Amino acid sequence: MSSSSSSHSISPTPLLKDELDIVIPTIRNLDFLEMWRPFFQHYHLIIVQDGDPSKVIKVPEGFDYELYNRNDINKILGPKASCISFKDSACRCFGYMVSKKKYIYTIDDDCFVAKDPSGKDINALEQHIKNLLCPSTPTFFNTLYDPYREGADFVRGYPFSLRMGAPTAVSHGLWLNIPDYDAPTQLVKPRERNQRYVDAVMTIPKGTLFPMCGMNLAFDRELIGPAMYFGLMGDGQPIGRYDDMWAGWCTKVICDHLGLGVKTGLPYIWHSKASDPFVNLRKEYKGIFWQEQLIPFFQAAKLPKACTTVQECYIELSKQVRAELAEVDPYFTKLADAMVTWIEAWDELNPSTTTTA
Amino acid sequence: MSSSSSSHSISPTPLLKDELDIVIPTIRNLDFLEMWRPFFQHYHLIIVQDGDPSKVIKVPEGFDYELYNRNDINKILGPKASCISFKDSACRCFGYMVSKKKYIYTIDDDCFVAKDPSGKDINALEQHIKNLLCPSTPTFFNTLYDPYREGADFVRGYPFSLRMGAPTAVSHGLWLNIPDYDAPTQLVKPRERNQRYVDAVMTIPKGTLFPMCGMNLAFDRELIGPAMYFGLMGDGQPIGRYDDMWAGWCTKVICDHLGLGVKTGLPYIWHSKASDPFVNLRKEYKGIFWQEQLIPFFQAAKLPKACTTVQECYIELSKQVRAELAEVDPYFTKLADAMVTWIEAWDELNPSTTTTA
Repeated sequence: MSSSSSSHSISPTPLLKDELDIVIPTIRNLDFLEMWRPFFQHYHLIIVQDGDPSKVIKVPEGFDYELYNRNDINKILGPKASCISFKDSACRCFGYMVSKKKYIYTIDDDCFVAKDPSGKDINALEQHIKNLLCPSTPTFFNTLYDPYREGADFVRGYPFSLRMGAPTAVSHGLWLNIPDYDAPTQLVKPRERNQRYVDAVMTIPKGTLFPMCGMNLAFDRELIGPAMYFGLMGDGQPIGRYDDMWAGWCTKVICDHLGLGVKTGLPYIWHSKASDPFVNLRKEYKGIFWQEQLIPFFQAAKLPKACTTVQECYIELSKQVRAELAEVDPYFTKLADAMVTWIEAWDELNPSTTTTA
Repeated sequence: MSSSSSSHSISPTPLLKDELDIVIPTIRNLDFLEMWRPFFQHYHLIIVQDGDPSKVIKVPEGFDYELYNRNDINKILGPKASCISFKDSACRCFGYMVSKKKYIYTIDDDCFVAKDPSGKDINALEQHIKNLLCPSTPTFFNTLYDPYREGADFVRGYPFSLRMGAPTAVSHGLWLNIPDYDAPTQLVKPRERNQRYVDAVMTIPKGTLFPMCGMNLAFDRELIGPAMYFGLMGDGQPIGRYDDMWAGWCTKVICDHLGLGVKTGLPYIWHSKASDPFVNLRKEYKGIFWQEQLIPFFQAAKLPKACTTVQECYIELSKQVRAELAEVDPYFTKLADAMVTWIEAWDELNPSTTTTA
């Protein structure tokens, strides 16, 4: 027999039944939940219905859920509803705001249960919870990946003072089958499927940005919730498909500033269907240009030490967006306004700051 | 059928028979080469014999090699031989210096051929060559790992201007079975074995340090060779088992400065036998304390723009070591001297700078 749980690992995984909400943005009946039933049925769902609010969304029986359509969002937020996107899955962030739980898991409705290499169904949520409950290691790279996983540890040369790690704020999961490609790559490689199961979880180092995909994503709402704003996309906006990217860039800059960790890797979900690359190209078009300026902006962004809460960091970031990105496009002035509105709305719905009730 | 080679990938892997040397430090007969014969026999070996030079090292028949013992090193380098460690596998870096090839692969003599999950022997060298011939992505993280691998690419949100990547200078391979743990971890977890095959290669982001292990390591000698100095360890020195770590910290800082990439992950070798943790603890003892100051030093190290060659960078780094680490221990003044000697010796043996003959 080999061994031996990591001296650092936490096991077995708690279910966190009363501490986690699953947020699902959708425009259709949620048949996909049938496949997730064994893993999701103990949790509360927050369904954010996009598009026509008069349409009735069917949810399979036995699930515990609340559902918000556009009318509900407008009623709850009033004029501040302007910060929530319409006709775009970016609307999901409304669910983060109305949740009262410590943890959020968000998943797209075209994502199914994937199988690990042994053929076993992957309980994605359990792995996300593991990721969130174990520390991250943002300040130094561990070559055997997550040192807190069973069968792994810190390797020779890893400074001992850094082995406590940092609290994990985000767990970014991946996708088998249809990879999360942009429209140009979809167009160039229409047949490419992700078949590589990489059995790893790792911390994205401090100071490094990454493309955060919202398809299969969990986070600690108390630690980072107010930064998880998915921006202005869809109806009436010049851009789409950058909602999660925007949230990821802001979140990473703030996590780095506050000493929080971001993990990526396991768990995989099965992404069933590629979206239309032509439609995607239209949505992404401006973003392809803009991101060339956005990335250097976020790479250079520095937050003052005085910003010690996520809200303070986010408001500061909105000021920098306004000051430095308005020249890219007037859209960014509107987005900076929306960032402020988002925080105002967040604080209104979550008056007791970020402390658990 | 899915698909399809990456639009960025380079295949099939060239053998680079005339462009790569394998460097092996050893104190014993090289029986371990029998297992590597199918993969190594086309390459030239540089064997650096450590310890008693009168001992005869047996090399299995059919291998093309040159062997240097301590007498040879002293003869070739004269007084500059002082920079090459004795009674420590750090002596291997002499082999990097006398090589005239573009690429180096170095491996420990207790490392054997590992098997992939399908049971197939892993050609570690071929994977290293793939890693070195494909670009790296140090400035932005790709969540599907190496975007140049077959079946992978850059994900949505990855800036297009960064997809050319950076030249790869280092390929850091991993180890199945005995993990590369420090003495305290060995003592605490004597039975731990690495059984997790992580099917990934990734770039260590710019600005992030990592613990570079010399057990299974390849690099582009022309791009980074002079930074691969394994320091002063072993006989007459207060420390051991930090040779590769030292080289890794220096190399990473210089790669970051020069815009070069460092990859880690595949290939795995099978590490057969754990070294004695009590002996290791004695060797590592001071390093455990020192690294707490060394890591912040290297994390903060900045090289001036005027340093445009590896040699210039390394000499500059030696000055910073002398100025800032002497207070940690007088050893670092000696090490700073040795860093300068190393570069002098390197340039003496490699007068035509780093351009290929």
